[in-house]
Amino acid sequence: MNKTYDAIVVGGGVIGGAIAFNLSKRGMKVLLLEKDRLAGKASGAAAGMLGAQAELDGESPLFQLARTSRALFGDLADELMVASGVDIELVEKGMLRVALTERDQQEHQTIIEAHTQNGETAELLTGEEARKREPTLSDEVTGAMYLEKDGQVSAPQLALGFLKSASALGCVIKEDLEVHSLRFSNGKVTGVTTNEGDFMSSHVVVTGGVWSEKLISETGLQLNMYPVKGECFSVRTEAPLLTSTIFTPGCYLVPKKDGRIIVGATVVPNTFNQQVTLEGIFSLMAHAQKLVPSILQGEWEKAWTGIRPQTADGLPYLDEHPDYKGLFIATGHFRNGILLSPITGEIMADLIEGKSPAVDLSSFRLNRLNRKTNPIAR
Amino acid sequence: MNKTYDAIVVGGGVIGGAIAFNLSKRGMKVLLLEKDRLAGKASGAAAGMLGAQAELDGESPLFQLARTSRALFGDLADELMVASGVDIELVEKGMLRVALTERDQQEHQTIIEAHTQNGETAELLTGEEARKREPTLSDEVTGAMYLEKDGQVSAPQLALGFLKSASALGCVIKEDLEVHSLRFSNGKVTGVTTNEGDFMSSHVVVTGGVWSEKLISETGLQLNMYPVKGECFSVRTEAPLLTSTIFTPGCYLVPKKDGRIIVGATVVPNTFNQQVTLEGIFSLMAHAQKLVPSILQGEWEKAWTGIRPQTADGLPYLDEHPDYKGLFIATGHFRNGILLSPITGEIMADLIEGKSPAVDLSSFRLNRLNRKTNPIAR
Amino acid sequence: MNKTYDAIVVGGGVIGGAIAFNLSKRGMKVLLLEKDRLAGKASGAAAGMLGAQAELDGESPLFQLARTSRALFGDLADELMVASGVDIELVEKGMLRVALTERDQQEHQTIIEAHTQNGETAELLTGEEARKREPTLSDEVTGAMYLEKDGQVSAPQLALGFLKSASALGCVIKEDLEVHSLRFSNGKVTGVTTNEGDFMSSHVVVTGGVWSEKLISETGLQLNMYPVKGECFSVRTEAPLLTSTIFTPGCYLVPKKDGRIIVGATVVPNTFNQQVTLEGIFSLMAHAQKLVPSILQGEWEKAWTGIRPQTADGLPYLDEHPDYKGLFIATGHFRNGILLSPITGEIMADLIEGKSPAVDLSSFRLNRLNRKTNPIAR
Amino acid sequence: MNKTYDAIVVGGGVIGGAIAFNLSKRGMKVLLLEKDRLAGKASGAAAGMLGAQAELDGESPLFQLARTSRALFGDLADELMVASGVDIELVEKGMLRVALTERDQQEHQTIIEAHTQNGETAELLTGEEARKREPTLSDEVTGAMYLEKDGQVSAPQLALGFLKSASALGCVIKEDLEVHSLRFSNGKVTGVTTNEGDFMSSHVVVTGGVWSEKLISETGLQLNMYPVKGECFSVRTEAPLLTSTIFTPGCYLVPKKDGRIIVGATVVPNTFNQQVTLEGIFSLMAHAQKLVPSILQGEWEKAWTGIRPQTADGLPYLDEHPDYKGLFIATGHFRNGILLSPITGEIMADLIEGKSPAVDLSSFRLNRLNRKTNPIAR
Repeated sequence: MNKTYDAIVVGGGVIGGAIAFNLSKRGMKVLLLEKDRLAGKASGAAAGMLGAQAELDGESPLFQLARTSRALFGDLADELMVASGVDIELVEKGMLRVALTERDQQEHQTIIEAHTQNGETAELLTGEEARKREPTLSDEVTGAMYLEKDGQVSAPQLALGFLKSASALGCVIKEDLEVHSLRFSNGKVTGVTTNEGDFMSSHVVVTGGVWSEKLISETGLQLNMYPVKGECFSVRTEAPLLTSTIFTPGCYLVPKKDGRIIVGATVVPNTFNQQVTLEGIFSLMAHAQKLVPSILQGEWEKAWTGIRPQTADGLPYLDEHPDYKGLFIATGHFRNGILLSPITGEIMADLIEGKSPAVDLSSFRLNRLNRKTNPIAR
Repeated sequence: MNKTYDAIVVGGGVIGGAIAFNLSKRGMKVLLLEKDRLAGKASGAAAGMLGAQAELDGESPLFQLARTSRALFGDLADELMVASGVDIELVEKGMLRVALTERDQQEHQTIIEAHTQNGETAELLTGEEARKREPTLSDEVTGAMYLEKDGQVSAPQLALGFLKSASALGCVIKEDLEVHSLRFSNGKVTGVTTNEGDFMSSHVVVTGGVWSEKLISETGLQLNMYPVKGECFSVRTEAPLLTSTIFTPGCYLVPKKDGRIIVGATVVPNTFNQQVTLEGIFSLMAHAQKLVPSILQGEWEKAWTGIRPQTADGLPYLDEHPDYKGLFIATGHFRNGILLSPITGEIMADLIEGKSPAVDLSSFRLNRLNRKTNPIAR
Repeated sequence: MNKTYDAIVVGGGVIGGAIAFNLSKRGMKVLLLEKDRLAGKASGAAAGMLGAQAELDGESPLFQLARTSRALFGDLADELMVASGVDIELVEKGMLRVALTERDQQEHQTIIEAHTQNGETAELLTGEEARKREPTLSDEVTGAMYLEKDGQVSAPQLALGFLKSASALGCVIKEDLEVHSLRFSNGKVTGVTTNEGDFMSSHVVVTGGVWSEKLISETGLQLNMYPVKGECFSVRTEAPLLTSTIFTPGCYLVPKKDGRIIVGATVVPNTFNQQVTLEGIFSLMAHAQKLVPSILQGEWEKAWTGIRPQTADGLPYLDEHPDYKGLFIATGHFRNGILLSPITGEIMADLIEGKSPAVDLSSFRLNRLNRKTNPIAR
Repeated sequence: MNKTYDAIVVGGGVIGGAIAFNLSKRGMKVLLLEKDRLAGKASGAAAGMLGAQAELDGESPLFQLARTSRALFGDLADELMVASGVDIELVEKGMLRVALTERDQQEHQTIIEAHTQNGETAELLTGEEARKREPTLSDEVTGAMYLEKDGQVSAPQLALGFLKSASALGCVIKEDLEVHSLRFSNGKVTGVTTNEGDFMSSHVVVTGGVWSEKLISETGLQLNMYPVKGECFSVRTEAPLLTSTIFTPGCYLVPKKDGRIIVGATVVPNTFNQQVTLEGIFSLMAHAQKLVPSILQGEWEKAWTGIRPQTADGLPYLDEHPDYKGLFIATGHFRNGILLSPITGEIMADLIEGKSPAVDLSSFRLNRLNRKTNPIAR
């Protein structure tokens, strides 16, 4: 077995998949390594909202990145279907960011102004208008912001679509294979050491979500990431309850293509524990009932968790390592990994090829982190 | 294949299992037929409480039957273990019937008097005393009744234990085999017609829970049963939260041997639909939290339903058919099928052997039902 | 709840779904009743081959029906996607009917002649040519017949697509609801009696697969059906092993859109038992290995069974009851229920509407069966 | 949260559980850390044979250890049941090591002599005598060795029993928590750094199976372990097929208490990949069928894998680290982790307490390994 590759991707989630797919499309011979199962962590657990406007502040540097990424999904859905036969279940029925209080409504006003300045539109609705769009919305809903372009996909299918398409383009994918450490020579990355031996490449991308920290800490760089557990559950309803996604900061309801509704998500920082607690389910149910009372008549399907990677300043890392040439890092997407995966795949492929990405990356650089001098002597 | 048996049991739940076990022990050649999977309906779904005192009114004719049955569990656990190696997970740590209101406490007073007159004891506790026994009980608990002898078992294991033990004693058990109709000759039962042909016996016992109605209605007897859906869920906790079972009429918490707690059960009459609804889970969680607040920190395991067989007067049927000799009926145990299964097994085996059971069966006779004349002309 | 409908469909499999969908499209108010779970029996278990030519003798009256039905799948896939969002995962990559012996090859020659006379084409390949198409085929393959138009779908998705689309068009669907008996008046059907009460309609269609027998036998008609168990399993492979479906009479390999391969199916007549036996898996593996040796390197996913409805002469029943007006029967599709479902849906909707179907139904009539006189006196 | 403990156990399998249980019994305050799920790897996957004589060469240093450990199971079963309510499902019905060839029989002769010299007995049987004991054995069986004391347990239940009993004795157990590195000061271990912060203790035991290598390699010690994948599957039979365990070097059949038979296990070295392959199942079935032909009539349940930790010389490591005081290692039990867990728990607790174990450990020392000088500079 030839163990030298043009690039090695560490991590088999949606970010790793997107990068492997883009590199493979550009003709590179790629190896992707996953320590457990593909899409087994945050990527497989996400509800799949593409909430560029619903979730993000118009003033955040993430906003432009998110808008650009959201615009890629239409073509991507076709491309992945052709390459791998995987349907990412893109739904473009918009999102309703819903207000229950006057303060929520004022917030919507502010958000909408920022969006408008950034070239996006959003429609402000009264409670009644919102219920005309979505008749199952509760009477407690006093207003809403309709975001036409904020669609949604199946998160596990998206991850799978990237990975299967990469594989169809020649990428080698290995599960249950853990990278123990990175290999360096003369300030350049040369490969990885795993529990099944060494693999060599002059390009290594670490996309391990919050589990990236450990590997990168060997290089003297502290990523300062922390895990944020999110709990979700899904419901089946006889007739469809919703057309658009219903969003509030504390709870959202995402009507999937197959008739299920995903209700998410709790925000439990600083734990890697992947248990679903009764408290998580109970609080989500209480919240969801306030938004759409008839959801309680739905059939329980199942609950699950994901551990999202958060950074100290809330912005992802998309950069080459400042001290080790050829070592790239793409992580810290928190709740926006699904939304940001298409653009992240393109950006990182550009960086690896030595091209300048079309996007301004200054906010996502690693130079905002402290680092120790000379940590590795290999 | 010889298709003649000493007795045919229709139904592979805990009642059918108990009867097949008793008949096999007495040397009869038994055939048991189950239309789906063994213990696949109410028997496998039950929480396994042996609440003779917690659940039953001292004045009910069921009370004496339940007391007698409860007393059989100790020896039965050993007997089934020896015969089949199945552990029914008997726990004899008592039950706390808990009061949240003054009215609940008055009710306890009344119950205790009836029990005392019937030869049972029960200990009345203040809220503080209850919390001394079970420190995780909420401050809202103002009193409790401690029922030392009301234990619990694993319901699926009990059903399995009866069935495996019957099998070890020679009983033939067939799944996915549906009885289409009963066969008669000269006012006597002669066997059954199934989707895999006929099986002959001069003794047929119908133990099909609420699904018994259809088969028996052919004989002109209306059992007047109705289904009552019950939803449950289970929780895992790191450290044990409870020693005894906590009981209120609307919600109970049963701490199983393996560390899980089963929380049950909703009461949804007149539906055969086996879906778990969000509403069911949500209301149980709200109720359980009031009793033991820290249950919310537990880990969600899963939810399920059972369809219990209820009769118009709330009493089971344990009798031979008034018109057809050799046709026996044992069903209608509602929420007490697990508790009543040992005595039901013995009683029905007595009736089939033509012996007089030691228990007064007058309240459980079929002669309290109307019937059509001459329904069958075969 | 208004309990009167334009039509009642008994059975929630692919045939019941197809009929409910067609009736709903034509503006009828339909009720569909399923005794267990939707698509829970044969429909959910099928491998989804559309083997009009691979499976059927050119001389069989089924052949024309199958050809016509197969031609409907392209438009149907789009129609169900629009109506319900369900992707039936149609794959139109043809089928290779593979020969291992000289006798197989002679058989192919005969089949091809019959097909040609019936207006279908098929390409005869040498072993080498077959391996050029499918390089993983074993050297033992000495020839093949390439059937371009024999595609495949996801069987559970097809059933779901029909059912969800019917539901979106207003059809009421109920699970866990068993029809105990049919209701008649003056030689006409008037409705059904179920475990949740009566539902009225002057059109009732029985589509209960092999479980139809019991209900229909009440009318004095003996359907003479018998169950044929089929066992299957599925495999995951890293890279795709196959493009087309590989077919032999004893074993087929169906490469699904999501990368799994379904290997089927055993033929075990006269049992309703739904267990997967080791023998079933073992014999399928031995057979599959002969066709595509590298399948053994694949990852085991799971195994399951389906109980297919077979008739004495191997032809389905598609007809109105000879004695009871308004009572329709559509069952007995054996291994071809998926393939025949689109045309069956249209035919039965025509019959119910009193229209003459475009297809010659003489071979599928019920008048080929014996019947008792005057069985019901209601 | 106080983060200082008397001892920290790294690894939540059967070995970690046994050590945590013994330390807790001796009054120590223990923390156990598991990076995934408790008993989620080799411990939960094992068939549970206690094959001290069937598996081990009488001349191996492991033989005495295994004999001693096997003798502990009777009392242990009671002790864990009392402490935690967990039934480890100990079956003491012996093992039949079966011969199919003359060479197998000669091997039995040699084994029996070695055992006799080591104080164990074994009964040599002809094929006929073997079939008298186990009538389902094939005619191809030409002889057997009956090992009365080689019993079996439920491997997952044993692991759970140790862990729950430790927990009941005050041990703190955390899942999804990965140890990134060990902490040292002045040549002594001082604790561990995890993905949820630091935990301090002057005693750390690494019991991470084949995943121990990485953590220990930081100390300059090369454990030279390699993974060996084992695939198993389980069968359900209507009537019990076997009483004793049937053992051959390539395949064994273990009749569990609940009526299932576990068939194991393949031996696939040098992979961490946890997939079950068709090849694995197929070869086990072929082998099992040769031993007990009627196994093929059994019902398929499921298949799974475990990754066993093997060492270069086939002997486990049970020792304190030669360079770092307070750091202990217990791993490398290969296929004998279940059997050796009771004695390993006692030995390691002795070592940690500074007592001399009653067993000769010279063969299990770490000084048989090479090590780098001064690997860590902390």
